[in-house]
Amino acid sequence: MKLQLALDMLSTKEAIDLVKQTEEYIDIIEIGTPLIKHEGIELIKKMKRTFPKKILLVDLKTMDVGEYESDFCFEAGADIVTVLGVADIDTIKGSIKSAKKNKRKLLVDLINVENKLARAKEISNEGDVYLGIHTGIDQQNRGESPLKHLKELSVLNRLLFVAGGINLDNIDEIIAQNPYTIIVGSAISSSQNPNLVAKTIKSKIDEGNQS
Amino acid sequence: MKLQLALDMLSTKEAIDLVKQTEEYIDIIEIGTPLIKHEGIELIKKMKRTFPKKILLVDLKTMDVGEYESDFCFEAGADIVTVLGVADIDTIKGSIKSAKKNKRKLLVDLINVENKLARAKEISNEGDVYLGIHTGIDQQNRGESPLKHLKELSVLNRLLFVAGGINLDNIDEIIAQNPYTIIVGSAISSSQNPNLVAKTIKSKIDEGNQS
Repeated sequence: MKLQLALDMLSTKEAIDLVKQTEEYIDIIEIGTPLIKHEGIELIKKMKRTFPKKILLVDLKTMDVGEYESDFCFEAGADIVTVLGVADIDTIKGSIKSAKKNKRKLLVDLINVENKLARAKEISNEGDVYLGIHTGIDQQNRGESPLKHLKELSVLNRLLFVAGGINLDNIDEIIAQNPYTIIVGSAISSSQNPNLVAKTIKSKIDEGNQS
Repeated sequence: MKLQLALDMLSTKEAIDLVKQTEEYIDIIEIGTPLIKHEGIELIKKMKRTFPKKILLVDLKTMDVGEYESDFCFEAGADIVTVLGVADIDTIKGSIKSAKKNKRKLLVDLINVENKLARAKEISNEGDVYLGIHTGIDQQNRGESPLKHLKELSVLNRLLFVAGGINLDNIDEIIAQNPYTIIVGSAISSSQNPNLVAKTIKSKIDEGNQS
């Protein structure tokens, strides 16, 4: 299991400062969707330059022109980009094509996909992709969590990313499902002590990896 | 009917140059989704500064945190932002809240929504929004067009935006449906003479407005 830090603030400086505070515990740096829309491609270049050894994910949440959007992010330094599971299958195929061409990876974000298992199977037939179980922030605000869907998709032989309000209170049940990557955002970024929270989460994940 | 120019190139300079070439015929300038992800919020500010009298739409295609994403674009100068019709209803409500608070407008993009009429009715109950009939580029590439859905949604008493491969060959049948806004992208931007194409399209729309 890997730990991914989701950066959903709006400033390049704050984003880089937070990664600096936590980098020893982070496997994947995620430039969040609002942040990429706010800061643009320069941030991808700067993040890769500043943390060249980290895996860099750009949460594009692509909904159209899959190949076009993925291409320019991979060229700027992204190692992984995302496409929406609710997008047209040809958009997803375009993102898959771009990932293959650029020798990088694609994460299909299943946020708000109605029948996640069926759609995940359909998409998996198109190529070698990561699958993302993602309870949006607007969904978390009414009490939803990703655990149920994580369990449901664990039957697939695919690498799963999981996100949605994961924090120190609920991470144990996520770790028990052994996903490929656990995504944490505000539990780290809104904490008084991001380094300590990241360290604690990472040690729990490391324990899970050994058990 | 208004004419909206969709800017889907990736550079600020090219985008501004194209608007300069066509501005006398354009009612709404659209910063396309790849362009906002590539150039970030500075482009919104620059576009509004350069063309203060034009309506500025930012095609955010928001999928989560509707209020958060809309807020920063409105604050930067956007007059209209978009949210995805496939997003969670609470995300759409968040974008509606932001538009109301900022006294601006929201366009709900119905791209890839399965039952467009039912979803359009559901969303319309939440507030005063524009509705967008949108055939994505990846969908156009296999021969789809927005006309059928435009006709279907014309029964609603809502202001409709229509996009998806509209050009000089097919615009007459779109104009015949009398949508609120017709969105044209590559037919203008990829033309040898963008000014002439924009002028021709605008004069067709003006004729439609008078008939």
